[in-house]
Amino acid sequence: MEKITPSDKVLLLGESTFLVDVGKGLFHTNHGTINLSKLVGKKFGARIKSSKGVAFHALRPNINDFLQKRLARLPQIVSLKDCSLIAGLTGLSSGYRVIEAGTGSAFLTTFMANLVKPDGKVFTYELRSDFFRSAKINVEDSGLSRWVEMKNRDVSKGFREKDADLIVLDMIGAEKIVPKAGKSLKSGGFLAVYSPYIEQVKAVCDAIEMESFMDVRTVECLVRDYKITRDFSRPNTTMLAHTGYITFARKV
Amino acid sequence: MEKITPSDKVLLLGESTFLVDVGKGLFHTNHGTINLSKLVGKKFGARIKSSKGVAFHALRPNINDFLQKRLARLPQIVSLKDCSLIAGLTGLSSGYRVIEAGTGSAFLTTFMANLVKPDGKVFTYELRSDFFRSAKINVEDSGLSRWVEMKNRDVSKGFREKDADLIVLDMIGAEKIVPKAGKSLKSGGFLAVYSPYIEQVKAVCDAIEMESFMDVRTVECLVRDYKITRDFSRPNTTMLAHTGYITFARKV
Amino acid sequence: MEKITPSDKVLLLGESTFLVDVGKGLFHTNHGTINLSKLVGKKFGARIKSSKGVAFHALRPNINDFLQKRLARLPQIVSLKDCSLIAGLTGLSSGYRVIEAGTGSAFLTTFMANLVKPDGKVFTYELRSDFFRSAKINVEDSGLSRWVEMKNRDVSKGFREKDADLIVLDMIGAEKIVPKAGKSLKSGGFLAVYSPYIEQVKAVCDAIEMESFMDVRTVECLVRDYKITRDFSRPNTTMLAHTGYITFARKV
Amino acid sequence: MEKITPSDKVLLLGESTFLVDVGKGLFHTNHGTINLSKLVGKKFGARIKSSKGVAFHALRPNINDFLQKRLARLPQIVSLKDCSLIAGLTGLSSGYRVIEAGTGSAFLTTFMANLVKPDGKVFTYELRSDFFRSAKINVEDSGLSRWVEMKNRDVSKGFREKDADLIVLDMIGAEKIVPKAGKSLKSGGFLAVYSPYIEQVKAVCDAIEMESFMDVRTVECLVRDYKITRDFSRPNTTMLAHTGYITFARKV
Repeated sequence: MEKITPSDKVLLLGESTFLVDVGKGLFHTNHGTINLSKLVGKKFGARIKSSKGVAFHALRPNINDFLQKRLARLPQIVSLKDCSLIAGLTGLSSGYRVIEAGTGSAFLTTFMANLVKPDGKVFTYELRSDFFRSAKINVEDSGLSRWVEMKNRDVSKGFREKDADLIVLDMIGAEKIVPKAGKSLKSGGFLAVYSPYIEQVKAVCDAIEMESFMDVRTVECLVRDYKITRDFSRPNTTMLAHTGYITFARKV
Repeated sequence: MEKITPSDKVLLLGESTFLVDVGKGLFHTNHGTINLSKLVGKKFGARIKSSKGVAFHALRPNINDFLQKRLARLPQIVSLKDCSLIAGLTGLSSGYRVIEAGTGSAFLTTFMANLVKPDGKVFTYELRSDFFRSAKINVEDSGLSRWVEMKNRDVSKGFREKDADLIVLDMIGAEKIVPKAGKSLKSGGFLAVYSPYIEQVKAVCDAIEMESFMDVRTVECLVRDYKITRDFSRPNTTMLAHTGYITFARKV
Repeated sequence: MEKITPSDKVLLLGESTFLVDVGKGLFHTNHGTINLSKLVGKKFGARIKSSKGVAFHALRPNINDFLQKRLARLPQIVSLKDCSLIAGLTGLSSGYRVIEAGTGSAFLTTFMANLVKPDGKVFTYELRSDFFRSAKINVEDSGLSRWVEMKNRDVSKGFREKDADLIVLDMIGAEKIVPKAGKSLKSGGFLAVYSPYIEQVKAVCDAIEMESFMDVRTVECLVRDYKITRDFSRPNTTMLAHTGYITFARKV
Repeated sequence: MEKITPSDKVLLLGESTFLVDVGKGLFHTNHGTINLSKLVGKKFGARIKSSKGVAFHALRPNINDFLQKRLARLPQIVSLKDCSLIAGLTGLSSGYRVIEAGTGSAFLTTFMANLVKPDGKVFTYELRSDFFRSAKINVEDSGLSRWVEMKNRDVSKGFREKDADLIVLDMIGAEKIVPKAGKSLKSGGFLAVYSPYIEQVKAVCDAIEMESFMDVRTVECLVRDYKITRDFSRPNTTMLAHTGYITFARKV
């Protein structure tokens, strides 16, 4: 059980990390070539060596492996720390009906699809055709497309879906979509708006105040990495100091 | 559909917020008494007034409403921002088999149970009987007990479960349990250790280095709240500056 | 040498800390009464006991002792971390000619006077008479009044002084004073504007852009305190998360 | 008055910024050659054009210009934010007697010399000859050497000076020097120890606890830069997240 087949993806974890399709046969790295067909029939967790003798662990990939090692990034993504906080502060879990605009690279889309499965859905809107096409490839590659409905549509007229548990806006002009979001959220449902600039936060908060929302909260999430060794421990010298602000509100 | 019944819990969202059992009948607040039986048969989202004329929205409660308004806190909880990051950085989602030690107040337990449903499970260990009893009441009250197996047991001999997707340690002496965690994780599975003190982080990182783990990372999550008004915007004056460090590692 | 006289101030450092005038004779604390006249003729650094037997060290007070233990705070002060950064990033030191508006409680005024002595000067403007009077008492009490010229005047018409090395603005409507500041700064001199709100920062930056300034920089200073013991070390649980933004620019 | 002479240094502020000796005559930049002799007899603040027609403002340099544009950095420096906080929290100002070990690149040395002038002194110790020589050149180049006494000596036997107002330690093994620092500080004087690693902080705090110190405080200073434009404002994407911890204590 849990044996690797040619249709699987595996995470090769070693000095470098790769997420590859076993069916590809040969995979070339700067640590030498890896003959993936040797993995077929072995258990996930098996070790494999490259032509240069470098060892890799062949693991079943996780959603985050996909997001970080495989997803093609065309427009700017919502970073994992912000995805985590959006999910955590809105109770995002299996069964949720989520609406998202815009899709962008589908990083957040895929992150959320993994959480709503097996019986929820993410409806995601993207206006730009180039982003839409790139996002579609990403979602299909993720294996989560059953839980995503992708639309190459403008949202300025609103969303077709009603009674959403969560609506996430990550788009220029999000403030104009706030009233539409209010109409498509179920009572008690959450709005989460991601804004890189403080001026956008202000416009969004203004728009939220005009609609039936409560519990409005704007936050910023900072993750600080540490370097820990037996003798010397300290925070990393540099850090990602700003990605975006997230404004949460609850429909009443 | 979605009508309120006497066996439901509702979130009363107004000037104050309460999470109450409709079957209780009367609920006393400093805004007056609320006759909950009037809600029966109404749809979630309905409004109700207290004896003093104060209006509340009666919403279907979310997991976070439960965690924040209802869960009894005996020992220190893992805060929601840290729960979010643990979940987000390990891919925690439906179907995951999770082991946790210790249960504490079951805040993180319940948070994770909500994410693994409908087909995963959280196995949680707590040594102290008083914490175990309090946690049990919380888990049952959350409605998520189907996805939680609670054990009033010492983990120094290890966990009974194998092939876990995620093991979370939040306990004094976590470093001694790291080798046991390694044995109960499946290949590619995640270890996440929550440590309030830097000395604990060091001991845990030392223990991880002795075992078959890769991708070790220690982080701290800071959430900064903002006060946004039409004219004046700024971060809040004070903030929660430290809860704990989280160390992640991956079994190979 | 360095003996205490009745006209001295001393810092009583013990379980609590007080900055007192020796000439007062008796000083009442919740640790008992301290007979200050016993200190006369002793060296700074001597120990004295209260009527309840609690020991205090009698030290020569430092500027920061005065700022933190003695200065009466009527309007909101600029915190010490921000005073430090303003001084440090502008080279503030002996001989500087500084202009400040408004004086407020004279916390920053006194901090700067201590740095410009013995041959510089702080010219400080305050419109409100109540703040002016309170600030005057603080400056005189600090013993630094020789290096401060205080004015109960409106600055909307500009400053009388020219060729300032540094102009600090901490006032509502600072953006309107930026052009006046430009006229009173010497070439290469610094402007520093303290703004609690981001909207003020934007207005100030707009105003700066219209004038002859270079090297514009807006920063926020966060100081995180740590709790260090032999066994357990961690950042403090809460922190001062926001005081104000500081915008620096240089006249050319 | 304030005319430029051949023995002056000037700050050339333009698209790039340079701190040059006027006496050098010609200065070559990637914006063309600048004929510095043309500046002689002009006032500070004058403009000068390069051979390629690029304009520069010729300003009288500030201590910070020297520190940032001119000082040769051999070992790691104490960053300006940390220098500022050390000065601000210890009342460092004209007349202070300061002891420092080690000198390093003399960044902090020069910063402090500028503050103690005209009637204080910085006594600075450096064990390594290469650092000492490089630091000596920096101090002489700063024009502040009158207020600095440099020693190429080991401090493990203690300092020759007594009654210091401030002792700053920035060296490996600072904890061993803490008792010596206690002996050379005047009553009420400050100790400030800069430690990149938390293990050093712990060792220093342990050592401080054994001696006659009070008001022990360990802090970390974070400066966050903002990008402010008319339409879009946000914190910079990356920041310097860690330089070092500073531990303060007061001799009693």
